Amino acid sequence: MATSCRPSVSVPEHVITMEETLEPARERHAGHPQLPPALRLMENTGVRTRHIVQPIEETLKHPGFEDRDRLYEREAKARVPAVVQRALDDAELLTTDIDVIIYVSCTGFMMPSMTAWLINKMGFESTTRQIPIAQLGCAAGGAAINRAHDFCTACHEANALIVACEFCSLCCQPTDIGVGSLLSNGLFGDGIAGAVVLDALRRLFDEGGVHDRARGLPAGFGPGITAEMSLGRWQTADERTSDELQGVRQA
Amino acid sequence: MATSCRPSVSVPEHVITMEETLEPARERHAGHPQLPPALRLMENTGVRTRHIVQPIEETLKHPGFEDRDRLYEREAKARVPAVVQRALDDAELLTTDIDVIIYVSCTGFMMPSMTAWLINKMGFESTTRQIPIAQLGCAAGGAAINRAHDFCTACHEANALIVACEFCSLCCQPTDIGVGSLLSNGLFGDGIAGAVVLDALRRLFDEGGVHDRARGLPAGFGPGITAEMSLGRWQTADERTSDELQGVRQA
Repeated sequence: MATSCRPSVSVPEHVITMEETLEPARERHAGHPQLPPALRLMENTGVRTRHIVQPIEETLKHPGFEDRDRLYEREAKARVPAVVQRALDDAELLTTDIDVIIYVSCTGFMMPSMTAWLINKMGFESTTRQIPIAQLGCAAGGAAINRAHDFCTACHEANALIVACEFCSLCCQPTDIGVGSLLSNGLFGDGIAGAVVLDALRRLFDEGGVHDRARGLPAGFGPGITAEMSLGRWQTADERTSDELQGVRQA
Repeated sequence: MATSCRPSVSVPEHVITMEETLEPARERHAGHPQLPPALRLMENTGVRTRHIVQPIEETLKHPGFEDRDRLYEREAKARVPAVVQRALDDAELLTTDIDVIIYVSCTGFMMPSMTAWLINKMGFESTTRQIPIAQLGCAAGGAAINRAHDFCTACHEANALIVACEFCSLCCQPTDIGVGSLLSNGLFGDGIAGAVVLDALRRLFDEGGVHDRARGLPAGFGPGITAEMSLGRWQTADERTSDELQGVRQA
């Protein structure tokens, strides 16, 4: 039975509001036949602010794939270790307690993967297994939880570290006027451990509001009509035993 | 206890010999200070022929990342299904028996991943889990076996399909005269399920030569000083029970 600990989440310092998103979209794409429904859809999502790694003026330039990938690497290396450290602290674990790192990210690509860099940089054991996943989009948060669950079921007493690092603003295509691109430019933000599933989990920890032993179904949806769902059960601290940390258990 | 069945392997139709590799290298890089040791190292590997997806003249051109990635997608889609079907036939399984597809490839990138395409194209169940891994290089063959082992240990009676599809010739950098690039241009070929680990496994099946119940350690080495090893035990067909197929078991 795998137990999920409180996710640590970090978002970058540049903030744009929904109005700051809608205004340039109205200007840049005036006359686009699908603009009115796209704007309505953006507004109706309830997204009020988004965090991005660069000011919006830089984000809307497109210096090319190589420059953006370099920026991804720089920002990921600058931001991920602190988030990982906080997650470890919350779980009362050391880097040397971790058996597998599952790193999901589809908005930048590094070879070797960030998992190799983290292992060397943060002093994880050299035997730590690496599962870097770049191709599951939003569904990767759910997939990461499920693969961690598989690993911890296969190897009892094992600890899995999940990292989701997405800088969606680096994938902004300012000249692409397809409705899908309009929407993704208007909705997605940047964050670490910020995948939908992990963010929803964090809110459960922060805000509570679930009944003890409630069962839930965090789900993530990604490209290629891919979805991953994890069935979990909430367990309060009162029930905590020496083997278990407060969290959502995988059913 | 997970059991590995006979890998099916396919290589493309264009063949170059070691002499056809060495000759252009001698011409193109005459005067390169590290050419003599690089040539010696290539010769000493014992690689005699390599298979590539295009004629060598095309391979040595570099039409850019986008064109090469398009070629990767076209060739992968044209070649992978037959290899998968043969692997399934050898294992006496149907697509509907497969619970997880682990697809490792670092020489081309598709989003959505080939796993999503295969599921739709070949009639795998829509609940099939996807583990696409793009960032473990040569070590990915070993990682794939180990993740399949984890999955089958966590989910008893589950079947995992491993696909390794590498077209290294599409990563040839003709103008890169670094010694690493010289060597990789001179050594790596293209193939499906052709990762070192899986190819070694296939030779065990084809050629035999291991004692019954012998234990072995297929290992793969990749970028970022990454390695994955799988400890297995050979089991002959005589021991085969209704639950087990001939193969190398994970210890």
